[in-house]
Amino acid sequence: MNLPAAALHEPPASAAKLPPSPTSIDAVTRALAASFGNRLVTSLAVRQQHGHTLTWIPNQPPDAVVFPQSTQEVSDIVSLCAVHGVPVIAFGTGTSLEGHVNAPFGGVCIDMSQMKAVIAVHAEDLDCVVQAGVTRKELNEHLRDQGLMFPIDPGADASIGGMAATRASGTNAVRYGTMKDNVLALTAVMADGSIVKTSTRARKTSAGYDLTRLLVGSEGTLGIITEITLKLHGIPEAISAGVCPFPSVKAACDATIITIQSGLPVARIELLDEVMIRGVNIHSKLGLPETVMLFVEFHGTEASVKEQSERFGEIAAEFGGGPFEWATKAEDRSKLWQARHDAYWAARALRPGVESVATDVCVPISQLADCVEETKRDIEASGLIAPIAGHVGDGNFHTQPLVDLTDPEEVARAEAFIERLVKRALAMGGTCTGEHGVGQKKIKYLEAEHGASALVVMRTLKRALDPQNILNPGKILVL
Amino acid sequence: MNLPAAALHEPPASAAKLPPSPTSIDAVTRALAASFGNRLVTSLAVRQQHGHTLTWIPNQPPDAVVFPQSTQEVSDIVSLCAVHGVPVIAFGTGTSLEGHVNAPFGGVCIDMSQMKAVIAVHAEDLDCVVQAGVTRKELNEHLRDQGLMFPIDPGADASIGGMAATRASGTNAVRYGTMKDNVLALTAVMADGSIVKTSTRARKTSAGYDLTRLLVGSEGTLGIITEITLKLHGIPEAISAGVCPFPSVKAACDATIITIQSGLPVARIELLDEVMIRGVNIHSKLGLPETVMLFVEFHGTEASVKEQSERFGEIAAEFGGGPFEWATKAEDRSKLWQARHDAYWAARALRPGVESVATDVCVPISQLADCVEETKRDIEASGLIAPIAGHVGDGNFHTQPLVDLTDPEEVARAEAFIERLVKRALAMGGTCTGEHGVGQKKIKYLEAEHGASALVVMRTLKRALDPQNILNPGKILVL
Repeated sequence: MNLPAAALHEPPASAAKLPPSPTSIDAVTRALAASFGNRLVTSLAVRQQHGHTLTWIPNQPPDAVVFPQSTQEVSDIVSLCAVHGVPVIAFGTGTSLEGHVNAPFGGVCIDMSQMKAVIAVHAEDLDCVVQAGVTRKELNEHLRDQGLMFPIDPGADASIGGMAATRASGTNAVRYGTMKDNVLALTAVMADGSIVKTSTRARKTSAGYDLTRLLVGSEGTLGIITEITLKLHGIPEAISAGVCPFPSVKAACDATIITIQSGLPVARIELLDEVMIRGVNIHSKLGLPETVMLFVEFHGTEASVKEQSERFGEIAAEFGGGPFEWATKAEDRSKLWQARHDAYWAARALRPGVESVATDVCVPISQLADCVEETKRDIEASGLIAPIAGHVGDGNFHTQPLVDLTDPEEVARAEAFIERLVKRALAMGGTCTGEHGVGQKKIKYLEAEHGASALVVMRTLKRALDPQNILNPGKILVL
Repeated sequence: MNLPAAALHEPPASAAKLPPSPTSIDAVTRALAASFGNRLVTSLAVRQQHGHTLTWIPNQPPDAVVFPQSTQEVSDIVSLCAVHGVPVIAFGTGTSLEGHVNAPFGGVCIDMSQMKAVIAVHAEDLDCVVQAGVTRKELNEHLRDQGLMFPIDPGADASIGGMAATRASGTNAVRYGTMKDNVLALTAVMADGSIVKTSTRARKTSAGYDLTRLLVGSEGTLGIITEITLKLHGIPEAISAGVCPFPSVKAACDATIITIQSGLPVARIELLDEVMIRGVNIHSKLGLPETVMLFVEFHGTEASVKEQSERFGEIAAEFGGGPFEWATKAEDRSKLWQARHDAYWAARALRPGVESVATDVCVPISQLADCVEETKRDIEASGLIAPIAGHVGDGNFHTQPLVDLTDPEEVARAEAFIERLVKRALAMGGTCTGEHGVGQKKIKYLEAEHGASALVVMRTLKRALDPQNILNPGKILVL
């Protein structure tokens, strides 16, 4: 009885020819230069800076880089590019990891670094409105006086627009959620240049389709995010943080599962394997024991933080972990978390001179120990150096093979390892990326994860909202 | 420079003629009867039961009601209806409030009440997978032995599928979020009968477009939700609940703002105005003082619940509220929340024999006191009886004019009041519905809330995913 009457996947009626013709590029560049003056840059150096992020994909520079200052200017740029069928790629701070902002078909890179206004802070409502180019550290600097914070912390000092576009999360997500949970509303420029406000400042709504969540995580392929309304949180009255060694990955994961299951509102719970700890010790000049560790943080009142940390200590001990050492001073805590945040660089310290190929997967937490342990065995069997760090409260972990990109055999070995990692995560009911996003490098895994029908729906959405395929083409989906 | 090159709003190429011809209905009904036997019902009584919910919209019965037992059967039904251009309307428990399941163009109602399987409970991962017809109380009954709960509680014992489709929330949302936050993944049948799984059981993902959130809140207009993967929570070790009288709406709202701002993790914080309390006293035989009240609940450990309740008592006292009376026994707590949940019926006790016209709005919490107070003055000036209850931690409140539907003048007066209520909420930065959804009655407010460009995007999505407009036509959007 299965008779598809009106198949969803209609061919794109009006897709632009990619890459665009030199004539189209020329027309767009001239018009932008006339409007934007020296905020339109076509020098090779600047184009190359925008054609490559922290990834092993070769540099793919755009044809021009433009620096708008308002949503209306972004709309003007997109409208112009739409007329000429020229790609537009939004650029935040260039810290994405899977080739999100490289420009495989050239086009115009929209650099958001001059959109830095904190438009409003509504302390009573625990929300704020910012332009897309504000970074998370800049925002927290701005908020501190008011006792407020924006907790989402992917490590890098990424822009809020980029974090929304990649559905970023990081160390605090186990308690505060990801960008999907912390964006109340967006302003975005659609493929025809129209400006859309997706929602209001109300904490919840049932008023129509959730355009906010459709754009969060769409990596600039459905619209260009220009302003974001974010949830904020009060800076906790008390914070306690500490490190706890474990005899094995399994012991650390089991302690994490019980911590989460028992409802302890842990703010951060991070696993670093012994290889990563060795890198951290080198890079951050720490003297941590080189074994599997959990870095943990609790937020609350003095009394509740004390209660939480005692409970966690008991749980850790049950699994052979400990001693659980607390950093009670703010500066010791900062040092600890700085070391965790620097894990990307610490990993590189393990094999100076080669490239780091960071990637991530996420599995149901019950599968985490198995997934990490199998992955470690795989790393060893592959002869790779690849430290592991993970936001284990969410079942999300990263590995970072250190690869000599001039050696094709080693590159192939690393690629094959990542493919096995993704297949392992999918077989365990997980996802090919917990927080890095798809970019170019994870495109090939989406059908295995979501199935053919879901990919048809995703392509249908992309074709409906960007019929010319000019918004960050070549990312997330093959059309 | 604003030259829309590729406008998003293309006309629907293949929209079905609505209502469908008797021949089409006949063909579909015969084919369904052949496949489903006595699970296909066309009696007027059953059709009318499915053509009306708790709303003042007149009964709009479907042409037939079918009771599938699996996702594949739903797919078969939708495929058949797609061939014949016949509308399909998903039906949960019929407790929606804005005319979501009425069938203005006839068609086939898919009643999910025989899809009651709890497919899996993953206690370690704090998630479960259920068929769409499982109700929240049935699920909690199933989970209790394992010390787990599903906290989202809209009052009615709604189906999980219906709650996902309307992006429901309710009393616990201030702590646990809404359906948008608690659905990890969905299985849905799309307009062509294809079956889509939107995501995995991983706690977070950045793997492509967020089809889960696109379907949550789409009210059966983009796909029919058949299975849901839900986040679960451990039943808290300790729960404390109590009631606290306040001298005014403003005092109660101000105490709520400070409670939220200071990071007290309140699980429920509900405002009932003095009119609603009068109804509750009548309906639930309670002897509460007839003034503005907050009903409050805290979840946590014994120590943290004690700390939270003491803090709340201090905050309430600062605003002239109190005394704060605690129900420490589970049975007293149940009685209290049963009374709150019965508010819909309690309100009706204030004017027996007429209809209740429940509606809701949601505003930034800083605007809540003004919005509720202006609304109360408006109620008085309008000569209506309309008690107010609200999930004030989220800025969301309900009012429930009691209206004699046989009196056109009174109906017009109530309609005009609701229109002013919505405009007031929008002017304060809020939304026309916090949790009830759009259905038929809120369609006219969406453009004022979202703007014309956002409505173009919503219509584009609808046309792309349901080119024939057969999925719950006449809801959310005018095409």
